This record gives sequence, C-alpha cells and structure tokens, in this order.
Amino acid sequence: MTAKRVNKVVLAYSGGLDTSIILKWLQTTYGCEVVTFTADLGQGEELEPAREKALLLGIKPENIYIEDLREEFVRDYVFPMFRANAQYEGVYLLGTSIARPLIAKKQIEIAEKVGADAVCHGATGKGNDQVRFELGYYALKPDVTVIAPWREWDLTSRTALLDFAEKHQIPIARDKRGEAPFSVDANLLHSSSEGKVLEDPNDEVPDYVFSRTISPLQAPDQPTIITISFEKGDAVAVDGQKMSPATLLAHLNKIGHDNGVGRLDLVENRFVGMKSRGMYETPGGTILLDAHRAIESITLDRGAAHLKDELMPKYAELIYNGFWFSPEREMLQAMIDRSQELVTGDVRLMIYKGGVHVIGRQSPYTLYDQELVTFEEGAVAYDHRDAAGFIKLNALRLRTLAQRRKKLGL
Amino acid sequence: MTAKRVNKVVLAYSGGLDTSIILKWLQTTYGCEVVTFTADLGQGEELEPAREKALLLGIKPENIYIEDLREEFVRDYVFPMFRANAQYEGVYLLGTSIARPLIAKKQIEIAEKVGADAVCHGATGKGNDQVRFELGYYALKPDVTVIAPWREWDLTSRTALLDFAEKHQIPIARDKRGEAPFSVDANLLHSSSEGKVLEDPNDEVPDYVFSRTISPLQAPDQPTIITISFEKGDAVAVDGQKMSPATLLAHLNKIGHDNGVGRLDLVENRFVGMKSRGMYETPGGTILLDAHRAIESITLDRGAAHLKDELMPKYAELIYNGFWFSPEREMLQAMIDRSQELVTGDVRLMIYKGGVHVIGRQSPYTLYDQELVTFEEGAVAYDHRDAAGFIKLNALRLRTLAQRRKKLGL
Amino acid sequence: MTAKRVNKVVLAYSGGLDTSIILKWLQTTYGCEVVTFTADLGQGEELEPAREKALLLGIKPENIYIEDLREEFVRDYVFPMFRANAQYEGVYLLGTSIARPLIAKKQIEIAEKVGADAVCHGATGKGNDQVRFELGYYALKPDVTVIAPWREWDLTSRTALLDFAEKHQIPIARDKRGEAPFSVDANLLHSSSEGKVLEDPNDEVPDYVFSRTISPLQAPDQPTIITISFEKGDAVAVDGQKMSPATLLAHLNKIGHDNGVGRLDLVENRFVGMKSRGMYETPGGTILLDAHRAIESITLDRGAAHLKDELMPKYAELIYNGFWFSPEREMLQAMIDRSQELVTGDVRLMIYKGGVHVIGRQSPYTLYDQELVTFEEGAVAYDHRDAAGFIKLNALRLRTLAQRRKKLGL
Amino acid sequence: MTAKRVNKVVLAYSGGLDTSIILKWLQTTYGCEVVTFTADLGQGEELEPAREKALLLGIKPENIYIEDLREEFVRDYVFPMFRANAQYEGVYLLGTSIARPLIAKKQIEIAEKVGADAVCHGATGKGNDQVRFELGYYALKPDVTVIAPWREWDLTSRTALLDFAEKHQIPIARDKRGEAPFSVDANLLHSSSEGKVLEDPNDEVPDYVFSRTISPLQAPDQPTIITISFEKGDAVAVDGQKMSPATLLAHLNKIGHDNGVGRLDLVENRFVGMKSRGMYETPGGTILLDAHRAIESITLDRGAAHLKDELMPKYAELIYNGFWFSPEREMLQAMIDRSQELVTGDVRLMIYKGGVHVIGRQSPYTLYDQELVTFEEGAVAYDHRDAAGFIKLNALRLRTLAQRRKKLGL
Repeated sequence: MTAKRVNKVVLAYSGGLDTSIILKWLQTTYGCEVVTFTADLGQGEELEPAREKALLLGIKPENIYIEDLREEFVRDYVFPMFRANAQYEGVYLLGTSIARPLIAKKQIEIAEKVGADAVCHGATGKGNDQVRFELGYYALKPDVTVIAPWREWDLTSRTALLDFAEKHQIPIARDKRGEAPFSVDANLLHSSSEGKVLEDPNDEVPDYVFSRTISPLQAPDQPTIITISFEKGDAVAVDGQKMSPATLLAHLNKIGHDNGVGRLDLVENRFVGMKSRGMYETPGGTILLDAHRAIESITLDRGAAHLKDELMPKYAELIYNGFWFSPEREMLQAMIDRSQELVTGDVRLMIYKGGVHVIGRQSPYTLYDQELVTFEEGAVAYDHRDAAGFIKLNALRLRTLAQRRKKLGL
Repeated sequence: MTAKRVNKVVLAYSGGLDTSIILKWLQTTYGCEVVTFTADLGQGEELEPAREKALLLGIKPENIYIEDLREEFVRDYVFPMFRANAQYEGVYLLGTSIARPLIAKKQIEIAEKVGADAVCHGATGKGNDQVRFELGYYALKPDVTVIAPWREWDLTSRTALLDFAEKHQIPIARDKRGEAPFSVDANLLHSSSEGKVLEDPNDEVPDYVFSRTISPLQAPDQPTIITISFEKGDAVAVDGQKMSPATLLAHLNKIGHDNGVGRLDLVENRFVGMKSRGMYETPGGTILLDAHRAIESITLDRGAAHLKDELMPKYAELIYNGFWFSPEREMLQAMIDRSQELVTGDVRLMIYKGGVHVIGRQSPYTLYDQELVTFEEGAVAYDHRDAAGFIKLNALRLRTLAQRRKKLGL
Repeated sequence: MTAKRVNKVVLAYSGGLDTSIILKWLQTTYGCEVVTFTADLGQGEELEPAREKALLLGIKPENIYIEDLREEFVRDYVFPMFRANAQYEGVYLLGTSIARPLIAKKQIEIAEKVGADAVCHGATGKGNDQVRFELGYYALKPDVTVIAPWREWDLTSRTALLDFAEKHQIPIARDKRGEAPFSVDANLLHSSSEGKVLEDPNDEVPDYVFSRTISPLQAPDQPTIITISFEKGDAVAVDGQKMSPATLLAHLNKIGHDNGVGRLDLVENRFVGMKSRGMYETPGGTILLDAHRAIESITLDRGAAHLKDELMPKYAELIYNGFWFSPEREMLQAMIDRSQELVTGDVRLMIYKGGVHVIGRQSPYTLYDQELVTFEEGAVAYDHRDAAGFIKLNALRLRTLAQRRKKLGL
Repeated sequence: MTAKRVNKVVLAYSGGLDTSIILKWLQTTYGCEVVTFTADLGQGEELEPAREKALLLGIKPENIYIEDLREEFVRDYVFPMFRANAQYEGVYLLGTSIARPLIAKKQIEIAEKVGADAVCHGATGKGNDQVRFELGYYALKPDVTVIAPWREWDLTSRTALLDFAEKHQIPIARDKRGEAPFSVDANLLHSSSEGKVLEDPNDEVPDYVFSRTISPLQAPDQPTIITISFEKGDAVAVDGQKMSPATLLAHLNKIGHDNGVGRLDLVENRFVGMKSRGMYETPGGTILLDAHRAIESITLDRGAAHLKDELMPKYAELIYNGFWFSPEREMLQAMIDRSQELVTGDVRLMIYKGGVHVIGRQSPYTLYDQELVTFEEGAVAYDHRDAAGFIKLNALRLRTLAQRRKKLGL
C-alpha cells in the first residue's frame, strides 16, 4: 500500500508515547507538516506537557492546538445523549463512544482553518474508535484524507515501536518500557479499560484496573443523600447549587467515586464484528441516568416515554457505531429533545456502597398529581365503570380469536 | 346497573377479608353457586386456612379448589419472560403482571370443568390487574361473564365493607379493623406495595413497607459470591446445585433478601391512563436479570441480541398491559425462544449491599473465544486493512451528504 | 343512564338528516342551547343549506358557525401526514382519520369562545370516528362534556329516527326515507363507503358506490403525464403551476378521478377491536404518495429514509386510532419534519387506467449524482477494494457463528 | 494484491461471456481447478449450452454442476419472504436479493462435496450482490476463500475484457461485441435492469428495457379475473387448480406479463452506500403481494398484523443487505411463520392494464364474521356503551396533559 500524498495533517495528539511515535511516523512516512490537537475532555491529565513534547518533536508553535472542551463535551454531547437514557446492549453508558465525534469535529475545524488535507488518529484497527473518528471526519469533510497508522504501519510489535521511538529520540517514560497490562480511555464521563489482563471474561477484574471508583466494599458505611435538579431534561444543580454541565458531572463523579458507584464489567459486541470485554467506570453518569429516569417518571407522558424507550436501543447503537453526525441520529435527537421541554424538577437519591437508589422526586410540571386527575369541582375524573368498557373493547379481538379457536375445535 | 344472571362463578379467592366479602356478596347479589380457587404462587401464605374459611362461608367442599402453582408459574411464565430481559419502563421486572395470566387461566380451566358461566376477581377499578385478569378470561373463554365487584358494588368505604362483613358473619382479623397503610401483592417473583403512605412520590418509603428484603444498609459487610448456571436461556443451577425453577427462584430470593437486593421505588404509567407510585421488591429476579444478560453477552450473536433489545420494550408493555394470551406476545416469544438455544453456561456474581455485580462468565458455546476468531492455521481471521474498507463504505452516504451541503453552501 | 347537566353544546353539524335529528334531540334531551358548527373540508357539499336548516330548527343566527377549512385541512393535516408516507395496514391513506382532529379542534375553539361546556358529534358507537373526535376533544379541553347521541339515545332503528324527525318537524328528503345501502364519509382527501351492501368482504363493490373516481375500465385510453413539484416535502406545483395546498389536492383529485386512480377495497382492523370492510377512493392522495416517495428517493439519505420507514406503521396507527393530539405523534412529526428540509424537486408521473407510474425525478438537492460521488479531481470516491473489507467485517460475526456450529457439529 | 493460493474453486457460472472470462481468468490467475455451478432459478435460459461451453473451456465433466432450483427457490425463499409482505424502501419486492442466498448455499454445498477451498461469483464491486453472495458464503463456510474477480482483476474496460476473451479463445456472441445498454438480472420472481441508459433518474425507461411485461398501454382492454388460494400463508392454487410453488409463480408471471403488471422504476439505496436507479419487473410477485395482504386482512388478528407491519422494514432490509443466513432474519422468520398458521383462504382479483385490484376474499378461518362477533344467543357481543369507557381511559393521560397545560397557562 503506497501512502497517499499529504501536505498537512491534523493529528489527535495526547502527548503520550504512542501518539508521539505516530507524530514522528507521519513526518517520516508522509513527509508532511504535522498539526497537533490536544483536547481536555476531562481525562484527568495536564495538557501543557503535550505542548512541550510537541515542540520537542519539532512541531511549530503555531501548529500546536490545545483546547479545553469539557463544557462543550458535557453540554452538547453527554447531556443530549442522557436525555435519551441511552444504554448500549442494555447497560453500557457509551462513555468512549460519545467523546469521539467531538474530537473528530475539532480536528476537522482545525484542518479547515490551517488548510490541512488530512487528519490522523491513534485508534487501533480492531476497535470501534477508528470507525467513530473516521465517520466523523468524513461526515464533516468528505474529501479529507484519513491516516490510521495502526492499520498502515509495520510497527506491529512493542519492540518495533520502542525501537522506532529510540531511533527518533522520542522520550520513553520508564513505566512504558514494558507492555501495559491493559489499555485505558478516559474522559469526564467515564474511564474504560480493556485488553490483556481483562481478556478472559471469566477472570475477575483485578483491583489495580480501577481508577475512577473505589470498591463498593471500601465505600463509606453511611449513605450519601443528594438532590439533583433538572431543567428541560438536563441536570442543572446538585443539592440546590447551580453548576455548569462539566462542573456538575465532575461533582457527581466525585460522589460516585467515593461510594463505589458505576463499575461495569461487560462483554459487548463491537461494530467491527467481534466481542470484547471491558471494564467501565462511569460514576457520575450512573447516578445521572437513574436521576433522569426518575424525573421523567413524573413529568413525561406515557406515550412519550414509551416511544423513547422503544427507540433508545437504536439511538444508542447509532452512537456506539459512530453515527453521531448522521441524519438518523439528528432526527431521533429532534424527537427526544421535543419530549424534554417540561422534564424539570428535583430527584432525591441515596448513594450507598455502589448502589444508586431513588427515594423521592417532585416537579412543578408533575403529571402525578392528585388534583390533576380531578377535573371538576368535587368530582373525580376517573369513573370505575369506564374500566369495564375499556377492557371489553381491548378484549374484543381476543374474544374473536377465541371464538374462532372454539369453532374450529383448536 | 342490573346484575346479569349467573349460575355458577369461579372466584379467585385468597381467604382474606376482601375476597371473603366478595364471596358473600356474590352469593347475595347474584344468588349463584360460588366455586373458590386459591393458588399458591409463592406469596408466602398458608392455603389451608382459605379452605376452612370457604367452608365456613358455605362453600361446598367439591367447590373448593386449591393448587400449588409455583413450579408452573416460574417455568412457564417467569422464565420465558426473563429470556426477553423484560423491564417495563426501563426498570420494572413485572412481578405482578406476570402472575395474572396464570391465575386467569386456572380460573377458566376450573370454570370449564365445573360448568361455571362466570369468573370473578378482587382487583380494583383503577388498577392494571382488572385488565390483566379479564383479558386473560376473555382470551380463553370468550363467552364468559366477568364479575368485578369493585366496579359494581356500593361498598365504597372501609366502613361499608366492615358493616357488610359483620352483617354476614365474616370473621374480621383484629388488624384489619383499621385501614391498611398500603396494599400488597406478592408471589414468588416479587412483592409490590402501593397506596396511602406511598402516595406522595417525594416521600421516602417507610421501613415497615418492606417485606422481602432487608435494607442494603443492614446487609452483611461480606459480599456473597454465587454462580448461576443456565441452559437454553433458563437458570438451572446455583453453585453447581441443580434446582427446579421454583426452588431456584426461592433460593435466589433468599440470597437477594439477605443482601438487600431488588428494591425499586418507582412512579409508573398504568395502562388505564394514570401514573402510580409503587415499591417493588424483586430480590431473586434482580439477580437473575443481570445473570441472564451476562450469559447472553457471550453466547448470543450481536444481530440476535440487538433485535431482542429493540423489541423488549414492546414485549414488556404487552405483559404489563395484560396481553400475555395474545398472538403478538406469542409471536415475540417464538422469536425470543428461537434465540436462546445456545444460551447455556455459567455466570459468577458478587452480591453486596443491594448491588449485583457480574464478575465472570463462561460457556461451552461462547462466541467470545480467541480461537474462534482465528479461522485458519496460524493466521488470524481479522485483517486490519479490512477496517478501512468497512469504514469507507459506511461513510459513503455521509460523505455524499457532506458534499451536498458543501455544494449548497449549507 | 341519566343525562349530565349541560348548558351549551357545540354540535358538529352537517345539515343532513342525522345531525338534524341530533340537534333536536340535544334540545329536547339536554334542554341546552345548541351551537352548530359546519365545516367545508372539501366533502363537496354546499354549506349554506346547513345554515338555513339550522335556523329552521331554531338555532340562533349567532350560534351558527360555518367555516371553510380546506386550506387548513390540507396544509396542517394532510401534508404533514404525507411527509411520513403514512399508510395504515400497508395500504390505507387515512382519509377519514386525518379529518377528525381538525373538526374536533374547531369545535373546542368555538366552545371556548361561546362558553359552551359540551361538544357533540354524530359518529356511531361501533366505529373509529367516535374515538378520534373524543380523544381530540379531551386532549384540547380536558373538562369538556362529550355527548355521543348514538351511544346514548334509544333511536336505534331507522323507523324510530324517522318518527322522531317527523314528530319534531325535521324535513326529510325523499331519498332518505329508505335505508341507505351504504354510508359515506368524504373530504378533500378521500371518500369512504362502508356498511350494508359492502358487508360481505367476498362480494364485489357495486358500481354505484363510487363517487370520486370513474372505473379504471372507463378511463381514457391515453395516459396523462404530469409533473409534481415539491418543496420541503410538500407538493407546491403541478406542471409548473404553483397552487395552494387545497387547490393542488383538488387538482390531483380531478386527474385521479378521470383516470380511475385511488380505489381501495379493504378489510381493516378498527381500534375498537373488530374488522370492517370499506371502499376508499383517494384519487389525488394516491398520486401524491407515489410522487412523494419518488422525490424522497433522490433527496433523502438512506439512514433518514429507513428510520422513517420503520416508524411509519406506528405513526399511521396513531393517526388511525385518533392520537393526533398526543405527545408521541408530535414527537414523530418533529422527527419526520426534520428529514424533509431538502425534499425538494420534481417528479414526473404517468397516470393511466387506475395506475400511477413514476417515470422521472430530479432535484437541485439530489443525492443521486454522479459528480457527487466523485470527491476528487479525476478520481472516483469509490474504491472497489473497499467492498472487500466492508463485506469481511460485516461477515465476521456470521463466520464466528459458523465456526461455533462447526466446532459443535451442529 | 497477491492472489491467495487456491486449489479448487466453485464458480457461479451462467455460461455467458462474463462468467466464461472469469472461468478462464481463474485458471490462469490462480492456476486452480475450476468447478462450475449453473442453476436454473427461472431466469428463462437454457442450461445445457452452459455445460457445453464449460467443457469447451476445459472443465472436466465431473466438475460441471447444473441444477434446477426453481421449486426450492420459490418454496424456501420467495414464499417465506412473501409471508412477511416484504418491500424494501416501501416498494421493491427484493427479486434479486432473495435469489442470492440460495446460489451461495448451493456453491458451498458443492464446495464441501468436491473439497474446494474457494468460491467465486461474477458480481461487480459497486453493487449489493457481492455482499449477498459473500455473506452467504461466510455464514455457511467460515474458512472459505472468496474470489471476486471484478474487485481483483485489471480487466477494467470492455476492450480489455474482449481482448482477454479473444486471447483465450472464448467465443463471443456477435451482440456482445458492443457494450450492453443496460445490465439484467433475472429469475422466476423478477427481472431487474440497471446501468447505462437507465442512469439518469429523470430519463424515462426506454421500451426495449422491458422483458417480463408488456406495457400497461398495450395490455388487453378486458380485465382478467383470478382467484388465488392460500394455505398457511402460501399460495397453493390459482382458479382452483393446485400448483407447485414454482408452477404457480410462473403462472402468475404469465398473467402479470400479459396485463402489464409489476413494473417499478426505482431509485434505491444500496447497502454499499450509494443510490442507484433500477427498473424492476415482478409480474407474479406484484399480484401475490396484494393477494397475500388480502387473505391476511380477514385471517390475521390486528395485534399480529401490526407487529408484522412494524418489523417488515427491518426484515426487508436484512434480505436486501444479504443477511438471509443470520440469526436475526431467522428469528424474525420464526415470528412471522408463527402468525401464518391460519392464513388460509381465497382472494379474488381483477388484473387490468398494470393494476391489481382485490375484489373479494373469503376464508374458513375468517375473523371477519358477523356470527363470530356475536357471542351469546340473541345478543351481540358489542355494547355501544363500552366505547365510552374505552375512550375515556384512552383519553385519561391526554386530559392530564391538557390539565397541566391549562394550569401552567401554556
């Protein structure tokens, strides 16, 4: 496979060893100008070292882009997704999936700005992330050239990578000499771990894998009670204190962390066709989902709620598979957002030893309201006798079927 | 409303005060022969007192039917439903809903046997259970007469009921004199509580409401580790010990109870159109759901799993609304059962302080298998370069859309 | 059943015999003031005779409301529905269903204006229309009293009706003396016929039933070629001539009529639980549906189109069942409308002897465009070799399943 | 791209020029033994010339497989699909899609029998058929090597192909010298044409493209009336004459052909991501679909019918995309087949100038039956007053919503 000619490439650059090797490999293989993009999505790492490392590897200062995307990430990606109560395969909160479109979007924006004709990511060739990045790139800039080093290069062993790094004077942290026992992706919503020590789905996940939560077993013996306030489907305050989206999620992450909330040991189906096993930690998100469901339970009508439930699996699958920037995701979002206009109110939760328990909910827009079901002075809108007719007509087709069975002796 | 002429009626009879009043009311209002049917679905009450009470109220011995339905209940109703991972409105395990069709079916069987022309239940006129019972009756015996006393009589206050009971010499237990602070439905799958003290959804559920679980806060400080074995989608053993369906569920109930598992405080949407708040305790079922999902995660193909996920809300709604004996539920069941043929294997779980945590799973039929994804001697079936083409064609329509936007300057 | 006290009622009044009887019956039974509402939805009848008849029956001039709703009907009801390509049970274009919500809405608006506490319609107790009217009423004015004479009165035979009419000096047209051989509902979208001579679904519909179309057998031997132009999913012009929604639909009705287009002999499932047989004539709508599908075929992305297709049955069912004014219909509409922004262009059709044949389509926003799929100078965006990877990864899970079967000897 | 080593390959061989070139190319490129497989799926061509041509090209007699698959095709593929009323993108009857899995299956069976390690098809690299063939191959023999010459070779122009043919002494029919104005796929269900003269979707399809139908304009002036009989969802007789599946479909094809039935000019969305325009002729299938819907209309319950309708788009998409041999298609089939047990009876149709008009239907299992809806002696099961309760409870949540709006002044 011959490399396509590329003039300038925008690389999603973490500052770590792998993307530093990619940076150098792009320079040497494509002979092109490299623009680095480093984003803070709440992964919990300093960004300035990435700048220094990029400079060290010969990137021009004006080609180094560093952005704090935490608020945009939570406001425009995490929260819209939580309005849908999205869970992939019944349980996974899509922490990795939801971050990829934003990174792709920013890379393309920078590419347009600096006149780059290519973008590059560090995702491997067996995973979902390559799909998510690249579908994002193509959806936003259809003529872009995508470079996916892990699918292209011949640095297929740890040794080859380290040799390449040494040859190109890329600094190697001491703990990166050996092979990592598992790989990690992290952002403000979650941390995921997979590979190596996690590969046998029958082996329990070792303690040292966890980074975002303490064990439920080590969590405090006293429950924590909190109140989350929602407006139009989005969380806006905790215990009465208004917070920006990212601040709020970070706050819930802290509470979740301290109480061992949000661990998920999962075997899932990747879009590329294989099963994989991962350990997810989504402390704040886990609390948020239950709280959102609870505020919906009193403010959403049944028809709206059931329609959302029926379409949730498809919506979650779209995000998991990387189709955030697709007409069908946007259509579903329009449908979901439409339902959230009065999803406003407070939910009280008890957090305890890994568990989240809804213990109360109220709303100025509640549909659960004794007065509401009373439409007239002194009279209740509900007449028991209506139920007889309701049942009779719902039963009519079943009776007809039974009559047929009887007639036929079936 | 004039009562229809009825010769013989089969009453779902618990032996409690309310159904005893109904029994007497049937005799006095319809002047018909009453046949009582009392079933053990694992609600945790003796059945023989019901027989004695029926005799006391003048029911002929040959008209008293008492059956232990626990195995049939779990085997033919609970387990098929769990194959679907059914949860109504995202969380409720349908413990009440799933018991009603079986009771309806047995009442109709007895009606056919004794030549009764009517059946009667004790469900109120505002709830879902009246619908579930009656849709069952009509689906199985289209010409049956249904008597629903709570929709018909004028005993609309507690006082009126007690007066009627005293007048007809129905024994009243001392604790039934006052009004119950909440009402309960129980069977082997769950216990539900609703009404009165639970009516304000912002008030925490008082401790005395719970009957099937201890509080997570009082659960042991040591986690409990268990292994559940599945065959064709159904649980068949715990910790290597084979058990009948009902025995197994009872066993899981015990484990769940002791560890504070399965409490759910929920505001739900009733089929009859209003919201209600309930507290559900489903200790064994909560464990079972997570275990079933876990065994499916390694034995079910993605296409099968996602199809199941997409249809689950509809399936759950059908059961909740009382359409167990409907063609569409049976069609969905055929589809689901078809998927479960190789859902066989073991799931290891840690149960702790209200939480259920999957920690391992294995199966002779696992689709997660490093060897499996290797199709040829010494070669891996997965070629990284395939991913490029996969992404390219998945992106094609998105690129076309982007090209259109560009062309139009949108 | 005792009549509820009512002060003022808004009656959906056609001016025909049946609603005139209802008018009188309301006066005599409820002793209330009657406000009549007569709407032109394109049923093809003069409205002024209705005014005269109402006056004759004692309605005060200020209580007579007559409105031409044709444009509103097509613009706000028919067209939004056609954006969804809605067909109930695969074939029915919902001509009756879609008119009911608008009538209900107008009655409620008048009720609010004149201070009426009740509304009344002339739909029978076995059909769908009662449901559609009343769900509309309740959704817009929850405390309204609904009067449905056909479910309440004892005028259950033709003779009783005629006697009542004579007794109250309601004029009876000569041809109304006998019983009608079938009943009709008509508006600008369609005409439906059912009952009596149509009741045996194995009997062919007699010629005299049809009112909106000539027989395909009598249609001209020359095909008619037309071009329909769409903007944002709605038809706006025929053969280059801009027309208002109602004018356009009337124009298509004429073309359809003359070519025998749009007859549908159907056995359908009513919401109230029984099957019924109807003959529908939807000349313009039948043309419109095919044209809309055709313009979508080149302007809608696959993801958007398939999502619409999957949800269409539910959307159609909601309209059929009377849930136009429900959150779930509005959510689906938001989703559908979102997809129509670039559904703009021209469709050429051949209309011939009952058939509609798309023969060409073009759009400034077409996604079918050879240039569009070429992203780079001199190069085609599609690389054949990508297909191999695409197929390989789509096949991966199927290969894994096959490998399992092989291993197990299945 | 270096060719993989292959010992023996089973080629889907039509006997035409293109697959003859492929045959030779396989021999020269892979140096492997070629086994030809030629199937009669009703495409309307003699098979024996294919045998002779294969012999001429050096294939050993024992390596030539010729099979008449018409009955198997209709019985096990076409009919199961028609039970679902499957239409891709609302209109396409999937005539090409449904034939591919059967060919793939037979190729794999032969490969297993003769010990071949590879299979080969003649589908191009831009279409759907390559996907359908290959997903079939992989699903049935996961370790098979797939050869897709159109994606591999450098014979990318007509001239190059003809040069190759001449060089290898492959006979070239005179009319194959020039480039075909469109390409065709045909089987007993349909004939499809695409490419070249059809490429502009705004240009009308020229007359010479059609092969399976005369024009509606040339069809007889007298309508043809037929009766199709169904058993368990499948057509079994026409006008009282029992026929095998393939005979019956051929018979309907004749009737359709003669009356100009089943032409479809369509722009569709391919699985590989682009739009394409095709002209389909499905004369018998078009009649069959309407007839099947009609027999279902009286024998299927509403719940069953609507569930089928909701899942049809997904089922059709699976077949279109090539996932016939997938668990999800099989699960849906199990669901659909379950519904067809009593879909038995007769449908009368008028066929006229391109149109199919249902004019009557009857069944021993009809659910449309005046007696059926009468459950008791002298009494009708339907009580008008039940409708009031039915509507009231269906309206309850809408009233609650309206009450909220009112309270909030929205």
